[in-house]
Amino acid sequence: MSSGWLCIAGLGPGDEALITPEVSAALASASDVIGYLPYVARVAPRAGLTLHPSDNRVELDRAAHALALTAQGRRVVVVSSGDPGVFAMASAVFEAVEAGPTRWRDLDIRVLPGITAMLAASARAGAPLGHDFCAINLSDNLKPWALIEKRLRLAAEADFAMAFYNPRSKARPEGFARVLAVLRAACGDARPVLFARAVATPEEHLQIVPLGQARADMADMRTMVIVGSSQTRTIARSDGAFLYTPRSAALS
Amino acid sequence: MSSGWLCIAGLGPGDEALITPEVSAALASASDVIGYLPYVARVAPRAGLTLHPSDNRVELDRAAHALALTAQGRRVVVVSSGDPGVFAMASAVFEAVEAGPTRWRDLDIRVLPGITAMLAASARAGAPLGHDFCAINLSDNLKPWALIEKRLRLAAEADFAMAFYNPRSKARPEGFARVLAVLRAACGDARPVLFARAVATPEEHLQIVPLGQARADMADMRTMVIVGSSQTRTIARSDGAFLYTPRSAALS
Repeated sequence: MSSGWLCIAGLGPGDEALITPEVSAALASASDVIGYLPYVARVAPRAGLTLHPSDNRVELDRAAHALALTAQGRRVVVVSSGDPGVFAMASAVFEAVEAGPTRWRDLDIRVLPGITAMLAASARAGAPLGHDFCAINLSDNLKPWALIEKRLRLAAEADFAMAFYNPRSKARPEGFARVLAVLRAACGDARPVLFARAVATPEEHLQIVPLGQARADMADMRTMVIVGSSQTRTIARSDGAFLYTPRSAALS
Repeated sequence: MSSGWLCIAGLGPGDEALITPEVSAALASASDVIGYLPYVARVAPRAGLTLHPSDNRVELDRAAHALALTAQGRRVVVVSSGDPGVFAMASAVFEAVEAGPTRWRDLDIRVLPGITAMLAASARAGAPLGHDFCAINLSDNLKPWALIEKRLRLAAEADFAMAFYNPRSKARPEGFARVLAVLRAACGDARPVLFARAVATPEEHLQIVPLGQARADMADMRTMVIVGSSQTRTIARSDGAFLYTPRSAALS
Protein backbone atom coordinates (compact mmCIF):
# COMPACT_ATOMS: atom_id res chain seq x y z
CA MET A 1 0.00 0.00 0.00
CA SER A 2 1.25 3.49 -0.84
CA SER A 3 2.07 6.03 1.82
CA GLY A 4 -0.11 8.60 0.09
CA TRP A 5 -3.31 9.89 1.57
CA LEU A 6 -6.47 11.59 0.38
CA CYS A 7 -8.51 14.07 2.40
CA ILE A 8 -11.84 15.29 1.06
CA ALA A 9 -12.09 18.58 2.89
CA GLY A 10 -14.81 21.19 3.44
CA LEU A 11 -13.75 24.84 3.21
CA GLY A 12 -17.01 26.12 4.71
CA PRO A 13 -19.16 28.80 3.09
CA GLY A 14 -16.47 31.43 2.46
CA ASP A 15 -15.12 33.12 5.58
CA GLU A 16 -11.63 31.87 6.57
CA ALA A 17 -12.76 31.92 10.22
CA LEU A 18 -15.17 29.08 9.40
CA ILE A 19 -12.45 26.67 8.20
CA THR A 20 -11.67 24.07 10.86
CA PRO A 21 -8.09 23.65 12.11
CA GLU A 22 -8.28 20.03 10.91
CA VAL A 23 -8.79 21.20 7.32
CA SER A 24 -6.10 23.88 7.62
CA ALA A 25 -3.63 21.27 8.85
CA ALA A 26 -4.43 18.94 5.94
CA LEU A 27 -3.92 21.77 3.45
CA ALA A 28 -0.60 22.68 5.13
CA SER A 29 0.79 19.16 4.64
CA ALA A 30 -0.71 18.45 1.21
CA SER A 31 1.32 17.98 -1.98
CA ASP A 32 -1.71 18.41 -4.27
CA VAL A 33 -5.02 20.26 -4.04
CA ILE A 34 -7.79 19.28 -6.44
CA GLY A 35 -11.21 20.83 -6.97
CA TYR A 36 -13.56 23.14 -8.77
CA LEU A 37 -11.69 26.30 -9.76
CA PRO A 38 -13.28 28.85 -7.36
CA TYR A 39 -12.65 26.53 -4.39
CA VAL A 40 -9.03 25.81 -5.32
CA ALA A 41 -8.59 29.60 -5.66
CA ARG A 42 -9.27 29.85 -1.91
CA VAL A 43 -6.07 27.85 -1.14
CA ALA A 44 -2.89 29.93 -0.87
CA PRO A 45 -0.13 28.76 -3.25
CA ARG A 46 3.18 27.69 -1.70
CA ALA A 47 6.35 25.84 -2.66
CA GLY A 48 5.79 22.08 -2.81
CA LEU A 49 2.06 22.39 -3.41
CA THR A 50 0.53 21.71 -6.82
CA LEU A 51 -2.91 23.19 -7.42
CA HIS A 52 -5.21 21.34 -9.85
CA PRO A 53 -8.25 23.53 -10.54
CA SER A 54 -10.89 22.02 -12.81
CA ASP A 55 -14.21 22.98 -14.35
CA ASN A 56 -17.64 22.22 -12.91
CA ARG A 57 -19.43 18.96 -13.81
CA VAL A 58 -16.29 16.85 -14.07
CA GLU A 59 -16.63 15.48 -10.55
CA LEU A 60 -15.91 11.84 -11.40
CA ASP A 61 -12.82 12.67 -13.48
CA ARG A 62 -11.56 14.88 -10.68
CA ALA A 63 -12.18 12.11 -8.13
CA ALA A 64 -10.35 9.51 -10.24
CA HIS A 65 -7.43 11.92 -10.69
CA ALA A 66 -7.23 12.41 -6.91
CA LEU A 67 -7.27 8.66 -6.29
CA ALA A 68 -4.59 8.01 -8.92
CA LEU A 69 -2.31 10.62 -7.34
CA THR A 70 -2.94 9.14 -3.89
CA ALA A 71 -2.02 5.66 -5.19
CA GLN A 72 1.28 7.20 -6.40
CA GLY A 73 2.06 8.27 -2.83
CA ARG A 74 0.98 11.92 -3.05
CA ARG A 75 -0.72 13.77 -0.19
CA VAL A 76 -3.93 14.94 -1.80
CA VAL A 77 -6.69 17.25 -0.61
CA VAL A 78 -9.90 17.43 -2.64
CA VAL A 79 -11.61 20.68 -1.68
CA SER A 80 -15.35 21.40 -1.59
CA SER A 81 -17.09 24.47 -0.33
CA GLY A 82 -19.26 23.89 2.73
CA ASP A 83 -19.17 20.26 3.88
CA PRO A 84 -17.79 17.71 1.41
CA GLY A 85 -20.42 15.15 2.44
CA VAL A 86 -23.45 17.32 1.57
CA PHE A 87 -24.09 17.54 -2.19
CA ALA A 88 -20.35 17.83 -2.80
CA MET A 89 -17.21 15.87 -3.65
CA ALA A 90 -17.23 13.06 -1.06
CA SER A 91 -19.91 11.01 -2.83
CA ALA A 92 -18.14 11.48 -6.17
CA VAL A 93 -14.88 10.16 -4.69
CA PHE A 94 -16.60 7.06 -3.28
CA GLU A 95 -18.35 6.48 -6.62
CA ALA A 96 -14.90 6.55 -8.23
CA VAL A 97 -13.49 4.22 -5.56
CA GLU A 98 -16.25 1.69 -6.19
CA ALA A 99 -15.83 1.88 -9.99
CA GLY A 100 -12.03 1.88 -9.88
CA PRO A 101 -9.29 -0.71 -9.29
CA THR A 102 -9.79 -2.82 -6.14
CA ARG A 103 -6.55 -1.53 -4.60
CA TRP A 104 -8.08 1.97 -4.36
CA ARG A 105 -10.40 0.66 -1.62
CA ASP A 106 -7.53 0.36 0.83
CA LEU A 107 -6.08 3.80 0.24
CA ASP A 108 -5.95 6.15 3.24
CA ILE A 109 -9.10 8.19 2.52
CA ARG A 110 -10.63 10.54 5.04
CA VAL A 111 -13.51 13.00 4.84
CA LEU A 112 -12.93 16.22 6.83
CA PRO A 113 -16.25 17.89 7.65
CA GLY A 114 -16.92 21.59 7.16
CA ILE A 115 -19.63 24.16 7.85
CA THR A 116 -22.28 23.40 5.25
CA ALA A 117 -24.23 26.22 3.62
CA MET A 118 -27.58 25.48 5.26
CA LEU A 119 -26.11 25.70 8.76
CA ALA A 120 -24.23 28.90 7.98
CA ALA A 121 -27.42 30.41 6.51
CA SER A 122 -29.51 29.19 9.43
CA ALA A 123 -27.05 30.70 11.91
CA ARG A 124 -27.14 34.09 10.19
CA ALA A 125 -30.94 34.22 10.32
CA GLY A 126 -31.43 32.73 13.80
CA ALA A 127 -32.31 29.03 14.10
CA PRO A 128 -34.83 28.01 11.41
CA LEU A 129 -33.41 24.44 11.42
CA GLY A 130 -33.74 24.12 15.20
CA HIS A 131 -36.26 21.27 14.92
CA ASP A 132 -36.65 18.33 12.48
CA PHE A 133 -35.71 19.29 8.93
CA CYS A 134 -34.66 17.97 5.54
CA ALA A 135 -32.06 18.98 2.96
CA ILE A 136 -32.91 18.68 -0.73
CA ASN A 137 -30.69 19.37 -3.74
CA LEU A 138 -32.92 21.05 -6.32
CA SER A 139 -30.50 20.46 -9.15
CA ASP A 140 -32.22 18.01 -11.47
CA ASN A 141 -29.05 17.20 -13.38
CA LEU A 142 -28.82 13.91 -11.52
CA LYS A 143 -32.43 13.13 -10.65
CA PRO A 144 -35.82 13.43 -12.31
CA TRP A 145 -38.16 16.33 -11.55
CA ALA A 146 -40.86 13.85 -10.47
CA LEU A 147 -38.63 12.71 -7.59
CA ILE A 148 -38.00 16.29 -6.48
CA GLU A 149 -41.74 17.03 -6.51
CA LYS A 150 -42.54 13.83 -4.59
CA ARG A 151 -40.01 14.73 -1.91
CA LEU A 152 -41.35 18.29 -1.63
CA ARG A 153 -44.91 17.04 -1.05
CA LEU A 154 -43.84 14.42 1.52
CA ALA A 155 -41.54 16.85 3.33
CA ALA A 156 -44.42 19.33 3.59
CA GLU A 157 -46.73 16.60 4.91
CA ALA A 158 -44.07 15.63 7.47
CA ASP A 159 -43.90 19.30 8.47
CA PHE A 160 -40.12 19.42 8.14
CA ALA A 161 -38.33 22.72 7.78
CA MET A 162 -36.62 22.43 4.39
CA ALA A 163 -33.19 23.55 3.22
CA PHE A 164 -32.72 23.77 -0.54
CA TYR A 165 -29.33 23.62 -2.22
CA ASN A 166 -28.83 24.73 -5.84
CA PRO A 167 -32.27 26.32 -6.19
CA ARG A 168 -31.62 27.89 -9.53
CA SER A 169 -29.34 27.61 -12.51
CA LYS A 170 -29.14 29.03 -15.99
CA ALA A 171 -29.76 25.57 -17.42
CA ARG A 172 -33.23 25.28 -15.82
CA PRO A 173 -34.53 28.71 -14.79
CA GLU A 174 -38.14 27.45 -14.56
CA GLY A 175 -37.46 24.68 -12.01
CA PHE A 176 -37.42 26.81 -8.88
CA ALA A 177 -40.70 28.56 -9.80
CA ARG A 178 -42.30 25.10 -9.93
CA VAL A 179 -40.82 24.30 -6.52
CA LEU A 180 -42.35 27.45 -5.05
CA ALA A 181 -45.73 26.61 -6.61
CA VAL A 182 -45.69 23.09 -5.12
CA LEU A 183 -44.75 24.50 -1.71
CA ARG A 184 -47.46 27.18 -1.78
CA ALA A 185 -50.07 24.52 -2.57
CA ALA A 186 -48.80 22.31 0.27
CA CYS A 187 -47.91 24.87 2.95
CA GLY A 188 -50.02 27.97 2.24
CA ASP A 189 -48.85 31.54 1.68
CA ALA A 190 -47.82 32.52 5.21
CA ARG A 191 -44.87 30.16 5.71
CA PRO A 192 -41.60 32.14 6.14
CA VAL A 193 -38.89 31.67 3.52
CA LEU A 194 -35.24 32.67 3.95
CA PHE A 195 -33.18 33.56 0.91
CA ALA A 196 -29.56 33.61 2.06
CA ARG A 197 -27.19 34.68 -0.70
CA ALA A 198 -23.39 34.29 -0.51
CA VAL A 199 -23.41 33.73 3.25
CA ALA A 200 -20.12 34.48 5.03
CA THR A 201 -18.74 36.45 2.07
CA PRO A 202 -18.62 40.23 1.47
CA GLU A 203 -21.64 39.84 -0.87
CA GLU A 204 -23.86 38.29 1.83
CA HIS A 205 -27.52 39.26 1.54
CA LEU A 206 -30.41 37.88 3.60
CA GLN A 207 -34.11 38.26 2.87
CA ILE A 208 -37.08 36.75 4.72
CA VAL A 209 -40.49 36.80 2.99
CA PRO A 210 -43.75 34.88 3.34
CA LEU A 211 -44.07 32.03 0.83
CA GLY A 212 -46.86 33.91 -0.95
CA GLN A 213 -44.39 36.68 -1.79
CA ALA A 214 -41.43 34.44 -2.65
CA ARG A 215 -40.35 34.74 -6.28
CA ALA A 216 -37.97 32.52 -8.18
CA ASP A 217 -35.71 35.45 -9.06
CA MET A 218 -34.96 36.01 -5.35
CA ALA A 219 -32.53 33.06 -5.66
CA ASP A 220 -29.49 32.62 -7.84
CA MET A 221 -26.77 29.97 -7.95
CA ARG A 222 -25.17 31.34 -4.77
CA THR A 223 -28.40 31.34 -2.73
CA MET A 224 -29.42 28.90 -0.03
CA VAL A 225 -33.19 28.76 0.50
CA ILE A 226 -34.76 27.66 3.79
CA VAL A 227 -38.53 27.21 4.15
CA GLY A 228 -39.84 27.02 7.70
CA SER A 229 -42.06 24.33 9.18
CA SER A 230 -45.56 25.20 10.40
CA GLN A 231 -43.94 26.08 13.76
CA THR A 232 -41.26 28.45 12.47
CA ARG A 233 -41.55 31.98 13.86
CA THR A 234 -40.14 35.42 13.16
CA ILE A 235 -39.17 37.91 15.88
CA ALA A 236 -39.24 41.48 14.60
CA ARG A 237 -36.41 43.77 15.73
CA SER A 238 -35.17 47.23 14.80
CA ASP A 239 -32.85 45.85 12.13
CA GLY A 240 -34.76 43.02 10.40
CA ALA A 241 -35.90 39.87 12.18
CA PHE A 242 -34.80 36.63 13.77
CA LEU A 243 -36.17 33.45 12.21
CA TYR A 244 -36.34 30.34 14.38
CA THR A 245 -38.09 27.03 14.91
CA PRO A 246 -38.92 26.18 18.52
CA ARG A 247 -37.69 22.97 20.12
CA SER A 248 -41.15 21.57 20.77
CA ALA A 249 -43.77 20.51 18.24
CA ALA A 250 -47.26 19.06 18.18
CA LEU A 251 -49.04 16.93 15.57
CA SER A 252 -50.33 19.31 12.89
CA MET B 1 -28.57 49.66 24.06
CA SER B 2 -25.88 47.87 26.05
CA SER B 3 -22.45 47.16 24.61
CA GLY B 4 -22.72 43.52 25.59
CA TRP B 5 -23.02 40.72 23.09
CA LEU B 6 -24.21 37.15 22.99
CA CYS B 7 -22.75 34.42 20.79
CA ILE B 8 -24.43 31.02 20.66
CA ALA B 9 -21.48 28.89 19.62
CA GLY B 10 -21.00 25.32 18.43
CA LEU B 11 -18.02 23.42 19.84
CA GLY B 12 -18.32 20.60 17.29
CA PRO B 13 -18.46 16.92 18.26
CA GLY B 14 -15.42 16.76 20.57
CA ASP B 15 -12.06 17.13 18.82
CA GLU B 16 -10.49 20.57 19.33
CA ALA B 17 -9.40 20.49 15.65
CA LEU B 18 -13.08 20.69 14.68
CA ILE B 19 -13.74 24.01 16.50
CA THR B 20 -13.84 26.91 14.03
CA PRO B 21 -11.49 29.88 14.53
CA GLU B 22 -14.62 32.07 14.74
CA VAL B 23 -15.78 30.18 17.85
CA SER B 24 -12.28 30.18 19.37
CA ALA B 25 -12.09 33.96 18.93
CA ALA B 26 -15.48 34.47 20.60
CA LEU B 27 -14.40 32.32 23.56
CA ALA B 28 -11.12 34.27 23.81
CA SER B 29 -12.95 37.61 24.17
CA ALA B 30 -15.86 36.41 26.32
CA SER B 31 -16.50 37.47 29.91
CA ASP B 32 -18.99 34.65 30.57
CA VAL B 33 -19.52 31.14 29.22
CA ILE B 34 -22.86 29.48 29.82
CA GLY B 35 -24.00 25.95 29.00
CA TYR B 36 -24.60 22.35 29.93
CA LEU B 37 -21.84 21.20 32.31
CA PRO B 38 -19.91 18.81 30.01
CA TYR B 39 -19.75 21.46 27.25
CA VAL B 40 -18.61 24.25 29.59
CA ALA B 41 -15.94 21.81 30.85
CA ARG B 42 -14.42 21.92 27.34
CA VAL B 43 -13.61 25.64 27.75
CA ALA B 44 -10.25 26.42 29.40
CA PRO B 45 -10.57 28.63 32.51
CA ARG B 46 -8.69 31.94 32.47
CA ALA B 47 -8.61 35.20 34.40
CA GLY B 48 -11.54 37.45 33.53
CA LEU B 49 -13.74 34.58 32.36
CA THR B 50 -16.65 33.34 34.48
CA LEU B 51 -17.89 29.84 33.71
CA HIS B 52 -21.57 29.10 34.37
CA PRO B 53 -22.14 25.35 34.00
CA SER B 54 -25.70 24.14 34.44
CA ASP B 55 -27.65 20.91 34.45
CA ASN B 56 -29.45 19.40 31.47
CA ARG B 57 -33.11 20.29 30.75
CA VAL B 58 -32.88 23.86 32.01
CA GLU B 59 -32.37 25.30 28.54
CA LEU B 60 -34.85 28.19 28.89
CA ASP B 61 -33.49 29.29 32.29
CA ARG B 62 -29.97 29.15 30.87
CA ALA B 63 -31.02 31.19 27.83
CA ALA B 64 -32.72 33.85 29.97
CA HIS B 65 -29.64 34.04 32.20
CA ALA B 66 -27.43 34.59 29.11
CA LEU B 67 -29.73 37.34 27.82
CA ALA B 68 -29.87 39.09 31.19
CA LEU B 69 -26.06 39.12 31.40
CA THR B 70 -25.83 40.44 27.84
CA ALA B 71 -28.27 43.25 28.69
CA GLN B 72 -25.91 44.16 31.57
CA GLY B 73 -23.09 44.66 29.06
CA ARG B 74 -21.32 41.31 29.46
CA ARG B 75 -19.70 39.41 26.58
CA VAL B 76 -21.48 36.08 26.73
CA VAL B 77 -20.93 32.81 24.89
CA VAL B 78 -23.57 30.09 25.19
CA VAL B 79 -21.90 26.82 24.22
CA SER B 80 -23.49 23.80 22.56
CA SER B 81 -21.81 20.69 21.27
CA GLY B 82 -22.04 20.25 17.52
CA ASP B 83 -23.91 23.09 15.83
CA PRO B 84 -26.00 25.32 18.11
CA GLY B 85 -28.77 25.55 15.48
CA VAL B 86 -29.41 21.78 15.29
CA PHE B 87 -31.36 20.44 18.29
CA ALA B 88 -29.33 22.66 20.59
CA MET B 89 -29.27 26.01 22.38
CA ALA B 90 -30.00 28.49 19.57
CA SER B 91 -33.73 27.76 19.46
CA ALA B 92 -33.94 27.97 23.25
CA VAL B 93 -32.31 31.41 23.21
CA PHE B 94 -34.74 32.71 20.59
CA GLU B 95 -37.66 31.27 22.54
CA ALA B 96 -36.40 33.24 25.55
CA VAL B 97 -35.96 36.39 23.42
CA GLU B 98 -39.54 36.15 22.20
CA ALA B 99 -40.92 35.55 25.70
CA GLY B 100 -38.71 38.16 27.37
CA PRO B 101 -38.64 41.97 27.62
CA THR B 102 -38.91 43.73 24.23
CA ARG B 103 -35.47 45.33 24.66
CA TRP B 104 -33.85 41.88 24.44
CA ARG B 105 -34.81 41.78 20.73
CA ASP B 106 -32.25 44.45 19.88
CA LEU B 107 -29.35 42.89 21.75
CA ASP B 108 -26.29 41.91 19.69
CA ILE B 109 -27.02 38.19 19.26
CA ARG B 110 -25.13 35.98 16.83
CA VAL B 111 -25.18 32.25 16.17
CA LEU B 112 -21.75 30.77 15.37
CA PRO B 113 -22.11 27.50 13.46
CA GLY B 114 -20.22 24.34 14.32
CA ILE B 115 -19.69 20.81 12.99
CA THR B 116 -22.92 19.03 13.85
CA ALA B 117 -22.86 15.39 14.94
CA MET B 118 -24.52 13.96 11.82
CA LEU B 119 -21.92 15.52 9.52
CA ALA B 120 -19.03 14.37 11.70
CA ALA B 121 -20.48 10.85 11.80
CA SER B 122 -21.16 10.87 8.07
CA ALA B 123 -17.58 11.98 7.36
CA ARG B 124 -16.12 9.18 9.48
CA ALA B 125 -18.14 6.52 7.64
CA GLY B 126 -17.83 7.96 4.11
CA ALA B 127 -20.71 10.02 2.71
CA PRO B 128 -24.09 8.48 3.66
CA LEU B 129 -25.69 11.97 3.61
CA GLY B 130 -24.37 12.73 0.12
CA HIS B 131 -27.87 12.95 -1.36
CA ASP B 132 -31.21 14.26 -0.03
CA PHE B 133 -31.66 13.53 3.66
CA CYS B 134 -33.53 14.49 6.81
CA ALA B 135 -32.56 15.04 10.44
CA ILE B 136 -34.93 13.94 13.19
CA ASN B 137 -34.61 14.36 16.94
CA LEU B 138 -35.92 11.13 18.48
CA SER B 139 -36.26 12.63 21.93
CA ASP B 140 -39.97 12.72 22.68
CA ASN B 141 -39.58 15.09 25.63
CA LEU B 142 -40.83 17.92 23.46
CA LYS B 143 -43.01 16.19 20.88
CA PRO B 144 -45.51 13.33 20.82
CA TRP B 145 -44.51 9.85 19.67
CA ALA B 146 -47.25 9.99 16.98
CA LEU B 147 -45.43 12.87 15.29
CA ILE B 148 -42.12 10.99 15.33
CA GLU B 149 -43.77 7.94 13.79
CA LYS B 150 -45.52 10.03 11.13
CA ARG B 151 -42.23 11.64 10.16
CA LEU B 152 -40.43 8.29 10.00
CA ARG B 153 -43.05 6.88 7.61
CA LEU B 154 -43.03 9.94 5.36
CA ALA B 155 -39.24 10.17 5.34
CA ALA B 156 -39.06 6.51 4.28
CA GLU B 157 -41.63 7.12 1.53
CA ALA B 158 -39.60 10.14 0.34
CA ASP B 159 -36.54 7.85 0.30
CA PHE B 160 -34.45 10.27 2.34
CA ALA B 161 -31.35 9.10 4.13
CA MET B 162 -32.14 9.79 7.80
CA ALA B 163 -29.98 11.10 10.61
CA PHE B 164 -31.26 10.50 14.13
CA TYR B 165 -30.23 12.59 17.13
CA ASN B 166 -30.87 11.42 20.70
CA PRO B 167 -31.92 7.90 19.74
CA ARG B 168 -32.01 6.55 23.24
CA SER B 169 -32.29 7.71 26.81
CA LYS B 170 -32.80 6.14 30.19
CA ALA B 171 -36.17 7.90 30.44
CA ARG B 172 -37.62 6.06 27.39
CA PRO B 173 -35.56 2.95 26.61
CA GLU B 174 -38.35 1.43 24.48
CA GLY B 175 -38.67 4.35 22.03
CA PHE B 176 -35.75 3.50 19.78
CA ALA B 177 -36.84 -0.15 19.41
CA ARG B 178 -40.18 1.17 18.09
CA VAL B 179 -38.31 3.44 15.67
CA LEU B 180 -36.35 0.47 14.32
CA ALA B 181 -39.57 -1.56 13.93
CA VAL B 182 -41.25 1.26 11.97
CA LEU B 183 -38.19 1.58 9.74
CA ARG B 184 -37.95 -2.16 9.08
CA ALA B 185 -41.61 -2.21 8.03
CA ALA B 186 -41.07 0.77 5.72
CA CYS B 187 -37.58 0.11 4.33
CA GLY B 188 -37.02 -3.65 4.58
CA ASP B 189 -34.18 -5.49 6.32
CA ALA B 190 -31.28 -4.77 3.94
CA ARG B 191 -30.97 -1.00 4.39
CA PRO B 192 -27.56 -0.10 5.93
CA VAL B 193 -27.55 1.56 9.35
CA LEU B 194 -24.59 3.42 10.86
CA PHE B 195 -24.20 3.58 14.63
CA ALA B 196 -21.59 6.24 15.31
CA ARG B 197 -20.78 6.55 18.99
CA ALA B 198 -18.78 9.43 20.50
CA VAL B 199 -17.44 10.57 17.13
CA ALA B 200 -14.24 12.63 17.26
CA THR B 201 -13.48 11.58 20.85
CA PRO B 202 -11.12 8.89 22.19
CA GLU B 203 -14.18 6.64 22.73
CA GLU B 204 -15.24 6.76 19.07
CA HIS B 205 -16.81 3.53 17.81
CA LEU B 206 -18.44 2.96 14.42
CA GLN B 207 -20.64 0.03 13.43
CA ILE B 208 -22.50 -0.56 10.16
CA VAL B 209 -25.21 -3.25 10.09
CA PRO B 210 -28.23 -4.04 7.91
CA LEU B 211 -31.49 -2.75 9.36
CA GLY B 212 -32.63 -6.34 9.99
CA GLN B 213 -29.73 -6.78 12.41
CA ALA B 214 -29.96 -3.36 14.07
CA ARG B 215 -30.82 -3.56 17.76
CA ALA B 216 -31.85 -0.76 20.06
CA ASP B 217 -28.97 -1.48 22.45
CA MET B 218 -26.46 -0.61 19.70
CA ALA B 219 -27.22 3.06 20.49
CA ASP B 220 -26.80 5.01 23.69
CA MET B 221 -27.08 8.70 24.52
CA ARG B 222 -23.78 9.47 22.77
CA THR B 223 -24.68 7.68 19.52
CA MET B 224 -25.68 9.24 16.22
CA VAL B 225 -27.68 6.88 14.01
CA ILE B 226 -27.80 7.26 10.22
CA VAL B 227 -30.08 5.08 8.08
CA GLY B 228 -29.32 5.03 4.37
CA SER B 229 -31.74 5.71 1.52
CA SER B 230 -32.57 2.94 -0.97
CA GLN B 231 -29.51 4.10 -2.95
CA THR B 232 -26.95 4.01 -0.12
CA ARG B 233 -24.08 1.60 -0.76
CA THR B 234 -21.25 0.00 1.19
CA ILE B 235 -17.75 -0.55 -0.21
CA ALA B 236 -15.95 -3.37 1.58
CA ARG B 237 -12.26 -2.82 2.34
CA SER B 238 -9.65 -4.61 4.44
CA ASP B 239 -10.48 -2.60 7.53
CA GLY B 240 -14.28 -2.24 7.58
CA ALA B 241 -16.27 -0.46 4.89
CA PHE B 242 -17.10 2.90 3.38
CA LEU B 243 -20.78 3.89 3.44
CA TYR B 244 -21.99 6.41 0.88
CA THR B 245 -25.00 7.64 -1.05
CA PRO B 246 -24.38 8.42 -4.74
CA ARG B 247 -25.15 11.83 -6.19
CA SER B 248 -27.76 10.59 -8.62
CA ALA B 249 -31.14 9.05 -7.85
CA ALA B 250 -34.14 7.69 -9.71
CA LEU B 251 -37.80 7.44 -8.68
CA SER B 252 -38.12 4.37 -6.48
